[in-house]
Amino acid sequence: MGKLLEETLNNIESADKNIMSKAKVYMDNLTKPIGSLGEMENIAIKIAGITGRVHNTIDKKNIVIMCADNGVVEEGVSACPKDLTATVTNNFTRGITGVCVMSAFNNSSLTVVDIGVDSDSLNEKVIDKKIAYGTRNMAVGPAMTRDEVIRAIEVGIETVEKLVCEGVDLIGTGEMGVGNTTTSIAVLSSLKNLPVDSLCGKGSGLTDVQLEHKKSVIKRAIDVNAPDSEDVIDVLMKVGGLDIAGLCGCFLGAAKSRVPIVIDGLISSIAALCAMRINKNAKDYMFASHLSAEPAAQCVLDELGVNAMINLKMRLGEGSGCALAFNIIESSLYTMNNMGTFDQANIVSDFLIDIRE
Amino acid sequence: MGKLLEETLNNIESADKNIMSKAKVYMDNLTKPIGSLGEMENIAIKIAGITGRVHNTIDKKNIVIMCADNGVVEEGVSACPKDLTATVTNNFTRGITGVCVMSAFNNSSLTVVDIGVDSDSLNEKVIDKKIAYGTRNMAVGPAMTRDEVIRAIEVGIETVEKLVCEGVDLIGTGEMGVGNTTTSIAVLSSLKNLPVDSLCGKGSGLTDVQLEHKKSVIKRAIDVNAPDSEDVIDVLMKVGGLDIAGLCGCFLGAAKSRVPIVIDGLISSIAALCAMRINKNAKDYMFASHLSAEPAAQCVLDELGVNAMINLKMRLGEGSGCALAFNIIESSLYTMNNMGTFDQANIVSDFLIDIRE
Repeated sequence: MGKLLEETLNNIESADKNIMSKAKVYMDNLTKPIGSLGEMENIAIKIAGITGRVHNTIDKKNIVIMCADNGVVEEGVSACPKDLTATVTNNFTRGITGVCVMSAFNNSSLTVVDIGVDSDSLNEKVIDKKIAYGTRNMAVGPAMTRDEVIRAIEVGIETVEKLVCEGVDLIGTGEMGVGNTTTSIAVLSSLKNLPVDSLCGKGSGLTDVQLEHKKSVIKRAIDVNAPDSEDVIDVLMKVGGLDIAGLCGCFLGAAKSRVPIVIDGLISSIAALCAMRINKNAKDYMFASHLSAEPAAQCVLDELGVNAMINLKMRLGEGSGCALAFNIIESSLYTMNNMGTFDQANIVSDFLIDIRE
Repeated sequence: MGKLLEETLNNIESADKNIMSKAKVYMDNLTKPIGSLGEMENIAIKIAGITGRVHNTIDKKNIVIMCADNGVVEEGVSACPKDLTATVTNNFTRGITGVCVMSAFNNSSLTVVDIGVDSDSLNEKVIDKKIAYGTRNMAVGPAMTRDEVIRAIEVGIETVEKLVCEGVDLIGTGEMGVGNTTTSIAVLSSLKNLPVDSLCGKGSGLTDVQLEHKKSVIKRAIDVNAPDSEDVIDVLMKVGGLDIAGLCGCFLGAAKSRVPIVIDGLISSIAALCAMRINKNAKDYMFASHLSAEPAAQCVLDELGVNAMINLKMRLGEGSGCALAFNIIESSLYTMNNMGTFDQANIVSDFLIDIRE
């Protein structure tokens, strides 16, 4: 195991349950029926446990986008050309994609990381952490070496640590990589020992025939490589991607740095699952923006114990849902910090438990 | 029928389908797979149909809170004391309730309307449009006169028209009134000819015994009054509330003024349903923030044809979800206005249909 990864895993603690209890007591003394703000209360209380402070505000937000190519696209699992990965990676730095404008509107910045794009023509605003020019084709053998996976995870850790040093206190996750729903489902199927057929969806627009082909390629990759479901690194190495490994590192890095981090979409959620399987405390730092339309999405969020905040049937990826989740998280914190207490509200608290019948 | 109501109903047109088509064409030329922003695309396109302009921005937001008492609380349908309506109505103007802080964080203002609070001690910031000191007990006879309902609807219309004159171009809806889930379910059951048992939930904290009592009171009110399901005014007069009628007027006024308006929670959604039953075009102007945990909520949104944007299990009421919905609506408009087109993105559009496999 890499030194940074090992040190990170040794330094991830669970959320501070004592502070969470204090935050809950404070929340329950606000002028509303107990629990009536639903998940907004849970969000603010969870962040108290993360930071170790009852009251919190967000100063700087950033969405990390891990970009990488996947060798498995040779098998024709995607309807779009491989070089779209490089094109869209460049476009993230030009302010014109969905996540760019949504994060701009919500006062977040972006960090675009080349962790494995098969191109030398990326512009200078893309952070160069290239580990390989894409992975190898998992349908014929391991996608990566064990060392490559560990280095990719460490890129994620380093990226988050640098952001935290710069004052970022709320992180989002996004990805770009043609073929990465194929690798994600392979990872998920391997980790959970669930059949590919029950997990694999049409992404945005595969035909029935193309979907069957995609499933058969994922099954072949799992058969050929026989990943060990008890060993996340083995699973990522054999049927994963550099983007997924990099995001897994982001979740571990955020947990080590005690900073809240937002899952966005299926691929990001599967990277979060990898992080949690490596260190179960990592889940204490995670939030989920929206529920992907992909059939596998809910079972992943269930294992992570997180609730998707938004219901907009988005399937763009890129981390675009994070920007909307940021507003909800900040609204939750602001609400906890600024609502009146029962004393201020001239209400006897016993009554308020049933303020709405 | 009142003159203002009649004039309003004569001037509500459907959304501009031609502009919506143009907005859809523009949306489909943005650098993303077609439809991949899901409901965010539908929100921006719907607002184009409302305003008659392809591109829109929001200048001023306001949440209207209709406050009123309900005579039916004499039957013991609510666990909290009736004077909580007046107390919380006052607190809305003191900046300390949930909707106050959430709207403040999201740059929205509030309009607090006394449309029927049983109190003379409301502070001066509450707008006095009192029609009665609460309704009469619907369990023994009609809650209101036909004239009172129409005047309440007209208060809603006037309130929205005044806000629109002041430059408000996005409106939210909230309510405060002990006993108003009881009246709402009575209205819904009457309008949809659905059994009370299938619609009535525990609100925030009724026991099983209390729930059965609440159901029996609603059934008695419907039996005693025999509201005509084809006549919304008759239903509101017999088993409704001044708050519901006032919000119904807000939805009609927003439609007449061609301004988007956000439903928040069960009571607000049932007022929206009343508006749509009075004039079917009114639904073209409606959006929904979150899905209430009440069992009746989804069937109301289904008839209105709107999708709840947020999934936070909130049950505070007050219009508190509107503030979060405002951010999503504004993010949708900003995204449409600022994302790059295919020409800018160096991508051939055929490929992008399947950018994610």
